[in-house]
Amino acid sequence: MMKKVLIANRGEIAVRIIRACKELDIETVAVYSEADREALHVQMADEAYCIGPKQSKDSYLNFSNIISVAKLTGCDGIHPGYGFLAENASFAELCEQCNITFIGPTSDAISRMGTKDVARETMRKAGVPVVPGSTGIVADEKEGLEIAREIGFPVIIKATAGGGGKGIRVARTEEELVKGIQITQKEAAAAFGNPGVYIEKFIEIFRHVEIQVLADNFGNAIHLGERDCSIQRRMQKLVEEAPSPALSPEIRSQMGDAAVKAAQAVNYRSAGTVEFIFDHINQKFYFMEMNTRIQVEHPVTEMVTGIDLIQQQLKVASGETLAYTQEDVTIKGWAIECRINAENPSKNFMPSAGKVEMYLAPGGNGVRVDSAMYSGYSIPPYYDSMVAKLITFADTREEAVAKMKRALSEFVVEGVHTTIPFHAKLMDHEEFKSGDFDTKFLEKYDVMNS
Amino acid sequence: MMKKVLIANRGEIAVRIIRACKELDIETVAVYSEADREALHVQMADEAYCIGPKQSKDSYLNFSNIISVAKLTGCDGIHPGYGFLAENASFAELCEQCNITFIGPTSDAISRMGTKDVARETMRKAGVPVVPGSTGIVADEKEGLEIAREIGFPVIIKATAGGGGKGIRVARTEEELVKGIQITQKEAAAAFGNPGVYIEKFIEIFRHVEIQVLADNFGNAIHLGERDCSIQRRMQKLVEEAPSPALSPEIRSQMGDAAVKAAQAVNYRSAGTVEFIFDHINQKFYFMEMNTRIQVEHPVTEMVTGIDLIQQQLKVASGETLAYTQEDVTIKGWAIECRINAENPSKNFMPSAGKVEMYLAPGGNGVRVDSAMYSGYSIPPYYDSMVAKLITFADTREEAVAKMKRALSEFVVEGVHTTIPFHAKLMDHEEFKSGDFDTKFLEKYDVMNS
Repeated sequence: MMKKVLIANRGEIAVRIIRACKELDIETVAVYSEADREALHVQMADEAYCIGPKQSKDSYLNFSNIISVAKLTGCDGIHPGYGFLAENASFAELCEQCNITFIGPTSDAISRMGTKDVARETMRKAGVPVVPGSTGIVADEKEGLEIAREIGFPVIIKATAGGGGKGIRVARTEEELVKGIQITQKEAAAAFGNPGVYIEKFIEIFRHVEIQVLADNFGNAIHLGERDCSIQRRMQKLVEEAPSPALSPEIRSQMGDAAVKAAQAVNYRSAGTVEFIFDHINQKFYFMEMNTRIQVEHPVTEMVTGIDLIQQQLKVASGETLAYTQEDVTIKGWAIECRINAENPSKNFMPSAGKVEMYLAPGGNGVRVDSAMYSGYSIPPYYDSMVAKLITFADTREEAVAKMKRALSEFVVEGVHTTIPFHAKLMDHEEFKSGDFDTKFLEKYDVMNS
Repeated sequence: MMKKVLIANRGEIAVRIIRACKELDIETVAVYSEADREALHVQMADEAYCIGPKQSKDSYLNFSNIISVAKLTGCDGIHPGYGFLAENASFAELCEQCNITFIGPTSDAISRMGTKDVARETMRKAGVPVVPGSTGIVADEKEGLEIAREIGFPVIIKATAGGGGKGIRVARTEEELVKGIQITQKEAAAAFGNPGVYIEKFIEIFRHVEIQVLADNFGNAIHLGERDCSIQRRMQKLVEEAPSPALSPEIRSQMGDAAVKAAQAVNYRSAGTVEFIFDHINQKFYFMEMNTRIQVEHPVTEMVTGIDLIQQQLKVASGETLAYTQEDVTIKGWAIECRINAENPSKNFMPSAGKVEMYLAPGGNGVRVDSAMYSGYSIPPYYDSMVAKLITFADTREEAVAKMKRALSEFVVEGVHTTIPFHAKLMDHEEFKSGDFDTKFLEKYDVMNS
């Protein structure tokens, strides 16, 4: 087992990783920007080092400072968390070159999955269903038109280097397509340094369902069931749950198999997530993308499987064989996660940084809180707005929702606005409670005024 | 289902019960003493009423004020928690007379189990193993001597009205016995208003193992496995775990059956605990007593069974049939609870009331906290010293201990002394880690200086 790990992140995920390390008796090294001197992860780690000013590019994205701290403190490995360097193939490669274990997949797997058209082709060849569309990059508007005519409108134009909802444009007519290709290429060149775009059939009504996978260095790969992340606002997930209320046992099993195939196609190791577009109306699913990192919403999977994903990442990265076979994985109960952000849901989710005068997280049976807050902590305005991940777990979805409502009602965060009132309203929303919704839910309903 | 419940208690158990009520959509009424105006349970309940001054006898033990609040607010039931009125048969009877459901067993079951010699006889007749000793109350020293000679020294003299470690005296010689009977009778008359004593063989080396039972109004009774509470200081439990590291499957099954028999012998309903002396050296167990209430340590059972005991109490009290059969109950994983008290473990556990300047409970995977603390709360000196129950849950005992160590390391309680350092030392103690210990563990080891 590794002896010492550097956590190249901040906030709740840094705290989460420190916790798993402590449980495995691994020493921890935190790094922090000048704006994060008072952060909880700094206080919790065995050692902590400042790696630069507040701007992420100079601190949490600063390759050489992070690698230097890891080398000087004698770390065996670096855990990147999510965001920042988590899906940066160059950083993973640099770790490999410096003989530090990057706790995640190989740089090769990251880059193959990070380049969207390559990922799409890899999946297609591996037999994973992909949305009908172009084979690789579209050369020009003419080729784009040919493909669109073949698959039928509407289509979606995607920058191959894009992601997280950026570099995407829908075209419903031939004119929109021609213009769209030109604009997206230009934007992608400017934003990602790569103008390549590809085309897919646009599936408008779908659920976002994803499969958690786990793999070791020896070719063993399993899946840990699905998460449903259809409650999104501008393609940002707000609520996640496991299992999905929409999956039949057949689709669940097919999707799980497809995800394992996807992971094996890039010799995946560590924890990863294969995201699918689930066209629940036609009961068909398509590969969306693979996130080659631990995800924000991983706790719901931990609750229903009883498997600690961060501990597994650390074990697999230490060279252990996967401790579970597919048969060992059983899904029990229901888990829901609400992302509590420092945003004002009554004012269009405007960020609300500032001092948390009073912080009291809910507790009791079936409640888990992953957070880096404390009474008196000042949320810096430079990073994401997450206050806490609130996870509830019970036998049934109905009970997990009731538990979430109860937990939200006792969550005290004074001094900043949070999305707690939004989630409380959502838990009372009939369509949410029914489990029958899609990713347009928050376009359709003004939850705060319902 | 009941619509509105009064919680006749304070602290973490009042919070725990309010949480369960909210999850079942039951309205809650809190009561509080003048010293508890700022208490968390008062803030969390839908309604809250002051029932008297700081002294428990005038507030939390004030029958008429509590019943009046329940009547005036239209409550269907009263949940007594533990301590205070939880095992007061007269109060349970008064509730019955006032047409308010006492959320617990009948007054008859409480009084039969509360009178130790009656309980002992009831168990003996029901076929539950009892420690060899007198049949009922010992008339005088002469009868005591006869019995002691028959069962052999050492023996233990117990006040029938005692409990919780009070009214108990060991006799190793005939002289000690004669004196002991006289003194215990006098003390018991003064303390409990009942001079009756009985005699049992004194088993010196044993583990405290108890079985959780659950029963409804229709004669259905099941057990939910055992808890091991052998880590005690002056007969006060400090750490509890489920399952017990000491039980073989055979003993576990026999003890479970005996507990169900015990419950059925008094037509038990609601949640209760049958405590056993487990003579692990001779692999024999004996009935110790039945606690006719929810216990402090109930969460460890909830973690390993997935059954919410307070919710079940509320459901059964509402007239529902037990939702589980014995076959439905499966024990999975390992749970440990540390009672975090406001006491100074370096100064002989001296109570340390005062203002909690900063409170930050641990979180993350496998950690549950049941507490009524918050930053800025002043712990009144009039009641028990509990700050929080910290519960960890994992696949194995070793992992649950590692998780507890991690959780204790991040638990922040500033302003008062707590037993956190004691528990942290305990989690590192080789004999504790081995699982092989008995109730004399804390007499044998000076944990704080080990």
